[in-house]
Formats: sequence, structure tokens, C-alpha cells
Amino acid sequence: MKSIVIHAAKDLRIEERETPEPREGQVQIAIAAGGICGSDLHYYNHGGFGPIRLKEPMILGHEVAGHITKLGDGVTGLHEGQLVAVSPSRPCGSCKYCREARYNQCLNMRFYGSAMPFPHIQGAFRQVLVAEAAQCAPADGLTPGEAAMAEPLAVCLHAVKGAGDLMGKRVLVTGCGPIGLLTILAARRSGAAEIVATDLSDFTLGMAAKNGADVTINVGEAPEQLATYEADKGHFDVLFECTGVAQALAGGIQALRPGGVIMQLGLGGDMTLPVQAMTAKELQLRGSFRFHEEFFTGVEMMQKGLINTKPLITQTVPLAEAETGFHLSSDRGKSMKVQIAF
Amino acid sequence: MKSIVIHAAKDLRIEERETPEPREGQVQIAIAAGGICGSDLHYYNHGGFGPIRLKEPMILGHEVAGHITKLGDGVTGLHEGQLVAVSPSRPCGSCKYCREARYNQCLNMRFYGSAMPFPHIQGAFRQVLVAEAAQCAPADGLTPGEAAMAEPLAVCLHAVKGAGDLMGKRVLVTGCGPIGLLTILAARRSGAAEIVATDLSDFTLGMAAKNGADVTINVGEAPEQLATYEADKGHFDVLFECTGVAQALAGGIQALRPGGVIMQLGLGGDMTLPVQAMTAKELQLRGSFRFHEEFFTGVEMMQKGLINTKPLITQTVPLAEAETGFHLSSDRGKSMKVQIAF
Amino acid sequence: MKSIVIHAAKDLRIEERETPEPREGQVQIAIAAGGICGSDLHYYNHGGFGPIRLKEPMILGHEVAGHITKLGDGVTGLHEGQLVAVSPSRPCGSCKYCREARYNQCLNMRFYGSAMPFPHIQGAFRQVLVAEAAQCAPADGLTPGEAAMAEPLAVCLHAVKGAGDLMGKRVLVTGCGPIGLLTILAARRSGAAEIVATDLSDFTLGMAAKNGADVTINVGEAPEQLATYEADKGHFDVLFECTGVAQALAGGIQALRPGGVIMQLGLGGDMTLPVQAMTAKELQLRGSFRFHEEFFTGVEMMQKGLINTKPLITQTVPLAEAETGFHLSSDRGKSMKVQIAF
Amino acid sequence: MKSIVIHAAKDLRIEERETPEPREGQVQIAIAAGGICGSDLHYYNHGGFGPIRLKEPMILGHEVAGHITKLGDGVTGLHEGQLVAVSPSRPCGSCKYCREARYNQCLNMRFYGSAMPFPHIQGAFRQVLVAEAAQCAPADGLTPGEAAMAEPLAVCLHAVKGAGDLMGKRVLVTGCGPIGLLTILAARRSGAAEIVATDLSDFTLGMAAKNGADVTINVGEAPEQLATYEADKGHFDVLFECTGVAQALAGGIQALRPGGVIMQLGLGGDMTLPVQAMTAKELQLRGSFRFHEEFFTGVEMMQKGLINTKPLITQTVPLAEAETGFHLSSDRGKSMKVQIAF
Repeated sequence: MKSIVIHAAKDLRIEERETPEPREGQVQIAIAAGGICGSDLHYYNHGGFGPIRLKEPMILGHEVAGHITKLGDGVTGLHEGQLVAVSPSRPCGSCKYCREARYNQCLNMRFYGSAMPFPHIQGAFRQVLVAEAAQCAPADGLTPGEAAMAEPLAVCLHAVKGAGDLMGKRVLVTGCGPIGLLTILAARRSGAAEIVATDLSDFTLGMAAKNGADVTINVGEAPEQLATYEADKGHFDVLFECTGVAQALAGGIQALRPGGVIMQLGLGGDMTLPVQAMTAKELQLRGSFRFHEEFFTGVEMMQKGLINTKPLITQTVPLAEAETGFHLSSDRGKSMKVQIAF
Repeated sequence: MKSIVIHAAKDLRIEERETPEPREGQVQIAIAAGGICGSDLHYYNHGGFGPIRLKEPMILGHEVAGHITKLGDGVTGLHEGQLVAVSPSRPCGSCKYCREARYNQCLNMRFYGSAMPFPHIQGAFRQVLVAEAAQCAPADGLTPGEAAMAEPLAVCLHAVKGAGDLMGKRVLVTGCGPIGLLTILAARRSGAAEIVATDLSDFTLGMAAKNGADVTINVGEAPEQLATYEADKGHFDVLFECTGVAQALAGGIQALRPGGVIMQLGLGGDMTLPVQAMTAKELQLRGSFRFHEEFFTGVEMMQKGLINTKPLITQTVPLAEAETGFHLSSDRGKSMKVQIAF
Repeated sequence: MKSIVIHAAKDLRIEERETPEPREGQVQIAIAAGGICGSDLHYYNHGGFGPIRLKEPMILGHEVAGHITKLGDGVTGLHEGQLVAVSPSRPCGSCKYCREARYNQCLNMRFYGSAMPFPHIQGAFRQVLVAEAAQCAPADGLTPGEAAMAEPLAVCLHAVKGAGDLMGKRVLVTGCGPIGLLTILAARRSGAAEIVATDLSDFTLGMAAKNGADVTINVGEAPEQLATYEADKGHFDVLFECTGVAQALAGGIQALRPGGVIMQLGLGGDMTLPVQAMTAKELQLRGSFRFHEEFFTGVEMMQKGLINTKPLITQTVPLAEAETGFHLSSDRGKSMKVQIAF
Repeated sequence: MKSIVIHAAKDLRIEERETPEPREGQVQIAIAAGGICGSDLHYYNHGGFGPIRLKEPMILGHEVAGHITKLGDGVTGLHEGQLVAVSPSRPCGSCKYCREARYNQCLNMRFYGSAMPFPHIQGAFRQVLVAEAAQCAPADGLTPGEAAMAEPLAVCLHAVKGAGDLMGKRVLVTGCGPIGLLTILAARRSGAAEIVATDLSDFTLGMAAKNGADVTINVGEAPEQLATYEADKGHFDVLFECTGVAQALAGGIQALRPGGVIMQLGLGGDMTLPVQAMTAKELQLRGSFRFHEEFFTGVEMMQKGLINTKPLITQTVPLAEAETGFHLSSDRGKSMKVQIAF
């Protein structure tokens, strides 16, 4: 059973691991597709991010889907051969936050492919994965690639939910990588009346325009276009900040109307913010982190054709060329979501 | 200038009235399309409803759109020849509820075609209407028929907004007349993951299925189908009650999960409700009445292709045959929305 | 070990039961005080209420406090001799509602002294009770009588929480029994600016006036006083309905302002409601049922002197005279909360 | 008629101005008490703050109360001799934010004693003030000093309201000047179960302890005490940040539990914030700016004895010694709220 293991920055290896067997309540899955995420890239390019660093080899990957090959005892509602999207989120179920149903804040979370804590939580870029049945969303009718989009889609659905009712709202999305694009899809599906998207890359802005943005602005080339939204204390009800860059957030703040909500998805360390301006306009800056039940919602939305993630999968590479996938994925001018076929 | 005047139950006349001229801030509009609403039908069939009764002749109609023929002084942002949807809602702007921005609860509301108060508020089924510029939503790109759907659509957007965030929610709609259908469109657009619709007519249920309902149930013929949603204290997060019939509401209550929200749109006088069951499940019954800014939101959503009301317009009759339109509109087995072409 | 057992309407017996021993995670408690609740009275006076009927003898009681006499293995944070208030709410922790942290809607709830389901859930009016440590709120500094008020207080805190932010709000409370009075205390503590209370008994209204109501109205004698709040579509932001009587609810509806919230605490079977008026004013009728974490909040609030329940305990009778307590408790003209000293 | 005029930093003069007469809808008021606010101090000590600078002489003051000396035509509900608290907030009533009832964000706000815009908005530190009747809250039963506390109290009530329901919540207040203290009073009245307050001055912390804080921490001397609240991702539900100092905010962030709310009242320019940590814990940073209807709520709460601001008025100086008041007010080790008697 082959797996994709990161040993250190730029040291990515395809290694054999023992094929795991399912226990009670678990299923064995032949992984079919795995999407490369920004955090995977951070491990590959830099060996980690912020205080989170690799200390031992770790299987990467947390955006995966595959077909069930074996059912453990007591598993119902799933069957062999069935395509499932696998949620990488494994809260403990018994800490104080789990008991409050705030599962994404679990004190003992074991999220796939995560160098925090130590020993690291091994990931899901592997030919065979054993998962709890409860992690599996039946994905009948989807392609494995679409099913593997459930994870980043869930991140965006969680953020959209955190922003409250979007019906008729005016929305700004800063950053048009996969998270920005999926946020555009989710916001459009949630009733946003107007969506303006910004980025520094014409490639990603072009994709934003094709996937639901009403207006796109290259803030590197034409920052004055965003400034047109600043009149009378601003225009947008909600900003989905998907860059983690202070400059993007600050620009958005000027364009938000009083009482506006900033959903912060991008993770970017410390930022210097115009807190006085934010206070005077009574803005709300809300963090959004991972997801929980939105994973299953996302799969259902895709199955019903309510959200279409297919156009975002720009490249699929075979397992043997996984490293090529990591290179492609690092190039924001050529790729949106790169997936690996196992 | 011809207008459609109700004198008493079943006494509908097409009468000449003087052509009005716009004053400062107003526009003159050649009405092109007018939709017949349930309240118009109540006046036509019964001379009123509940305590609200006709006491003098009244021009009917409040779902209208037309082309601007003249601009009063000081009007900007509109131009002659432009198609506009005209909001029938005219709050005073200065009572205590208007000052709280709760305009639909205005103490001095002058809503078109309303027998409350006295003298009645004359309606908009007329060839020429003068309205405040602020009532007019530019409807470029829409047909007059679609533009005239802005009013009932606004009613439903207001209800959807009142239900809070619908993303991923399970929704039940009882009653598949125009309000039920537009609610389905609005709920789908707002991210509902599952929509089940009930009615007694296969014609309207068929239209519900074509316009976004995942499942339709004829509760006259197969009430047991709704009962399948009652297990484990119920299934739905939100019920949009569009019938005003106690039985429909009571059935929905059994199928709602704990904490579920009932948006009551149907107006049906007193109702006997299972309040103890509602209390034990901690349900929320919320009234939804008319709309305000949702009128403009609805036009924008139609213009952007986010909500498509066209399939709901099943018949259009010429002004001379207006009464035929009222008959058609009363037959729930043959029509959804009937409009009059002026 | 003596316990208070209801066999049928008016057939209340004090019976010996075996003294229970605590297992792992449990504590043994010498019950000191137990308050008689409306549901206890229903079993005593009528053998049940609505569809819930006694089918076998049942120990009554769910408002209790006492001193710990023994700790089971593994219990930390509690000690022998300590006064604790004991929550009667025992959700399963694993059904779908528990996993959503909606514990009061648990599908397998075992609430003390409850004839639903069968076999009945035996109650806590007993000299020795064994409870899970997690049910126990340390009540140091309180009297046993106060600590036994934690349960009905929790019911009211849950309702106040369900009403949302009360700061500066105008509140109507219909029904001034113990639940009405505790709601007044909780609403006052939560920042209500104005509290008007209604009842049919001058005794309970007098207690309401002494415990935080700004105005009291005997709606039997002077119903016109409530009508003064009906001008301009009504006055109150929130109605806490504590009677379960349709007439009280209907009167409150007239006095609620548009958008007002009705928290329904009283359980009164089916009710005929003016749904049309409720819809037109966009009122919200919300059920409130039991509580969860509010039990612990209530004890803390009493310990800090933020809520004072002592004046509501009007009589305390010894165990041998428990039946006298039930009689007293049934007389709304003489008693508020009657407790039994074990 | 004497008034207190700031000409430049440290250049405060008591000057004669013409006595104004009330027009229709206005009242003339003999100001009795005026509280010195942080922004008054900024003008006095620094000639402004951030980008807001004095460009011409300006009468200071916006926390005032006095007795009505004359009624303009058409004024009802007020009478000569009556004590009123005067709201300094004068929104235009017709801009887009006013029409949304978001009055504190008015595009044309004329808030007393404000150097933005130019010409400056003259303030209310004057022996005779003419105000709109609608600005006046009858303050019968209060002292003029208490009535003059209505303005800073309104700021804090607005922030408490912005934090949502506080019943049973755990609250941290950073900064124990007048705004911090009034926030403690308001949070306690709104049902907060636990209040911890921090500051660098033992004098203000002592006042916090006397006015409702359960625990006080001098973060200059014992920062480790706040760190005890950081276990398991933090302890507090809400942080009221009243310093405008990044260090205070950052410390609070560590002590907030996941999903916690930061109400930012302190105005402190740009701040460098740990946005990644805020995002991972899904915190919400919400600005709170001025107030609107809370001004009237605050007066009512004081009149009913629900909030007691009297102990916060530490010094009152006569008009002739106004500058002494500004010195006293600048010394956080000796004064809380300093007022001027006119």
C-alpha cells in the first residue's frame, strides 16, 4: 500500500505502508482521489507554517474520497464498492467542546495530516485508508474528484454559515484560490445578491468570473476599482477574507459598510489592523476554522447539483507523479485545485 | 385611462378614471402587467376577508410593472421608457415603527388595493399609475410579467429571511400556490438542502416538482407520506406554512424537529394549535407579513438569473377579459399565477 | 429510607425503600429539601396530565437538594457533607439531539418523577438519593431550600435565554405562580427595563410586586388595565406565558408590539390562537421546555446573591406532613413554593 | 452665558457666549452637571486624537444634564423645571443609515463637542443649552450628576447589547476607567455570572471590586493571574476591551474560549493582533461605537435603581475650576468620573 510521506521541506517520498484492516464500526477504503491543500503545500515547501513544524515523517493529505473495499463489524448504511467522501475531522466526542457540539474546537482533535500535536496525525494520501463509518459521506453519483472536494467545500460552507443569512447581501471575496472560489460558490448558493472577488492573478480571477463572481478586480493592477466601493462608509455586507494577508483585509475594511461582517478564513499569523476604523464602523471580524456537519451538507449539495465543484479541478496527476502535483499546485497562475489519482 | 374596480363580491367593472400626472419626486407609468393575488380574489369572490370588508368601490391590484412615461421634477436614476416594478408598499416614514426601520409595520401604511383603512387605498390595476420614484425598481432585462412577480416574490424573500440562515437546512412547504412556489424558489436559492412540498392538487404539486421541490406529497391522497418524517421527534428544520389552514400547520408540527421554525405566511384567522406539543419540542412559530427592501432584492435576483419566476406565470389575459382572469386564478387545478396585460 | 410515592390521584403514601449505594462516578445524598412542582400536583390531584398518566406507583419529586453522605469511586470535586442541588435531568448523552448539545430534547431522557415513559422514571422525594456526580451542583453558602429552587429557576433561566437579549426590554409575565415569579427574577436580572405581571390572585400579584414586577394587574378584576398597553399595535417586547391558558396568551398577543416574542412556558394542551393577528404583527411564539446547563448557572447566580429565591418559599412542611404540603401547594391564594423537609 | 472652550492643547478658556433661544420643537436648558470624557481630555491634553484635530475653538462636552428653563412651540411631554439628561447624538434622520435605524452611523452626525467634521460641532459644556425635545430624557428622581452619567452609560449599554445575551456568561473587562466600570455595571445587570476586571491601577481596580467585579487583576503587577484562565483554550465568553491597547486585547484573546466575543470599545488606532489565533478559536471581534436608544434605556435603568452610577462620580468641581477638573480627570490613580457643576 503506497502513501505520500513528507520528511522535510522538499523531501516528499512515496512509501510502502502496511495495509490496514477495519475494526468494529470502521470501513476500509481504496482511496481514488486526493486534493492538495494549502497546508500540504506548506509542509512540502517550508516544512510547516508558523509554530507548526514537522518533527517526524508524516503522511500528507486530508481531502480524499474512495471506494469501500471492506466493512468492519456493525457497520450499516454503507456497502462495498460505494464511493464515499471521507471527513478528515476526528473529534474525541467527550471533551467539553464536543459536549457543547463545538466539535471543530475539540481539545483532542486528530485531523488527518497534521503536524500538531506530536506524534503527528498521519494523513490520508494513501492507497488504502481505514476510517470510522461515521466519517464517511456516501457520494453516489459524484466522481471521486468531486467527492474529494467535500473537504475544502465544507470549510467554505462553515464560513458562509458563520456569516449568517446571506440572502440579498453584497459580498466581497478577497483571494481567489480554491477556498475563495468555493466560498463564491457557497455564497451564491446561499442567496448572495452581489459578489465581487479580488486577487493578484488574472488566471484565478478568470475562474472566479466563470464560477459566480459578478465583478472581479485585480488589486495588483487596478486597486482603484475596489476604492469605488468606499463611498458613504462602504458597500459590502460581508467580506470573506481568504488570503491571510493584512493588506487584503485592510482594503476590505474600507469597502465594508457599517455593521459589516468579516469572515476570516485565511491563516496569516499576526496582522496589523485598523482597529479604530473597525470599531467606529462597528465591523465584526469573525474567525472561521475547519467545519463539522458541513462536510455532509456539502456532499449532499453536490449530489443535488446545487453546487458544482468540477470546474475547479484543473489538474489530476497519477500517484507516481505526486510531486509534480505539488509543483503545479504551488503555481497560482496555472492551477486551481490539483488532485492526485491513487 | 381604464382601471379594474371591485364594487362588491362578483361585481367587477372596468371603469374609466382620469389620467394622473406626476408631481415632484414621482413618475407616471404605463402599467404593462398585473398579477392577480389571493387578496384580490378574496375581494372578488367574497367582498373581503375576515374583518376587512369593502365599503366603497376600490381599484384592485398590487402586483404591477410597467414602463415610465413621464418623470416628475427632481427624479434621477430613472428614465422614460424604462421598465420598472412598482412596490405597492407605501409606509409613512415617520411613525415609530418606520423610525425603527420596521416599515412593513407602519402605523399609517397605504398599501395598494387594500380595503383597510377607510377610505380604501386604491390599487394599481390601471393603465396609468403615478408612483413615488422610490417605489420603482428598475427592471431592465426582465419581461413585464416577471417584473410584476417582484411583489409576491418579496413576500417570500421576507419569510425566508425571517427563517434565518437556510444553508443545508431541511425545509417543508405546505401549500403550493404562488406563495408556496416562490418560497420554494427562494429557499432553494438560499441554500436549503432538502425541500418537501405538500398540497391537495396534483397540478400545483407538479409545478413544485419542476421548480425545485425534491419531494412532493399530496396530503389529501397520501397523508402517510408526511408521517414518515415524524420519527425521532421529526425531520424538518423549517416549515413555510402557506395555506392558513390549521390542519396543514398541525401536520407540519409533527414533522418538525425540536427547535424547528415555522414561518407562517398563510392568513387564516383563528387556529386551534397543539401548543403543548409545540412547547415541548421548543418550536418557534413566526409570523411573516409583507416585506420592505426585499422588493428590490427580488428584482435584482431575477435580473441576475438567480431566481426564475417565469414558469409560474401560467396565463396572461387582456384587460378586457380581466374577469376571466379572476375565474382562472380561482381554479387551483389549472393555474398558478394569472396576470392581466394592460 | 422513606420516600413519597403516588399510587393514583389523591393516593399519596410515604413508603420505605431500600437505601441505595453509589457506584463509580456517583454520590449518595441525604435529601434535605424538596419543592413541590405543578407536575407533582397534577399527579396528586389528577393522576397525570394530558396523555401522560400514572400506570404504576411512582416516587414523586424533581426539585431537590441535600448533603453528600458518600462518594462513589472516581468522584472528584465534591466532598462528604457538602450541600448540592441535584439536577433531575438525565439525558443519555449519545442520541442525535445529545450529540447536537440539545440535551433537553434527548430521545431517552430519564427526568426524575416522570410517568412518561413506562416503566416510570422514579423521582427524588426520598431521604436518600444516589445521583451521578455530574448532576450535582455544589451549593455551598445556600440553604437547602434555596438549593432546591435551582430546578424551577433553571426552567425560567432557559426561557429567558430563549427570549434573547432582554437589556432594556419591556416584559409582560402572565401567571404569577412559582414559574412566573422566578421568570420575573430572571428577567430583572437579565436587564429587563419594565416588567408587568398579571394573574387572577391578589396574593401572587402581591408577591410579584415585592419581587421585581413594576406593575401588577389582576386580569380577573381589571382586564382593562392590560388593554391600555394595546395602543399603536402594542407595547411589550416579550411575553413570558406561564399559565398555559389560551385567554392569557390571547390577551398578551394584543399587548405585544410588532416583532414581539412570546416564550411559552405554561403547558396547556391545544389552544385556539389568533394566528392571523400574530402573523400580521410578525410575532414569534417560542416554546421553552425544561433546561440543561442553566441548572448550574442558577445555583451560581443564587450563590453570588444575583438572584434571591428565598422569599418565594412560603411554607416548609416535614416529611410526615407531605400531603399537607400538596394541599397547601394547590391553593394559589395562600402559597407560592411549598417545600418538604426530609 | 459661560462656556468651556478649547482653543488648542492646554489652552482651555471659560468664555461668554450669547444665550440661545429655543425654536419650535426645542427646549432651553440650564445645564447643571457635565462629565469630562476621555475625548474631552484628548482635546485638552493633545489637541485631538489620531487624524481628528482641532482647527478652530470648540466648546467641549457631551455628557450633560440640566433643568428645562423654556419650552419651544409644540413641545409636549416635558415641563419647565424638569431635570433632563441630554443626548449629544444628533443624527440627520434621512441618510441611508438613519433610514435603516442605524442612527449611530449617520452620514451627517452632529455629535456635541466633536472636531470632526469642520466647522466643528460645538459641545454642551455651557450654562445654557438649546436642544431638540427628542434629545431630552426626563430624569426625574435622579441627581443632575447621575443624569449626566446617561451618556457614558449608553455607550456601555450599547456594547453590552452588541455582545448578545449575557445571562450566565463569563465576562472579562480590560480597563477600569469610567467606561470599564459602567460596562461592569451593565454586564452585571444583564445577567453575567462572572466578571473579572483588569487594569494597571489599584485605585480603579478597587472601584471595580466595589461595583460588581468578582475578581480584579493588576496586570502590571500580576499578569500571571490572567494566565490562569488560559487552560483548555480559555475561559471567558465575552471580553469588553476598554483600553484600546493592543497588549490588553492580546492578553484577553488568550483567555477567551472558542467562539468568544470581543466587544471593542477602546479606540486605539492601528493594532497588531494575533489573527491566526483568533481565527483558529473562531473568536469574534466586534466594534461598538456610541449608541442610540440606549441613552433613554440608561436613564430609565438608573431611575428604577437597576443601575447605580453614583459611586463612580468621584469629584465635582465648580465651573470656575473646570481646568482643575481636567487635571484630576487625567489622573487615573485618583479619579473615576470628574464632573463640572455649572
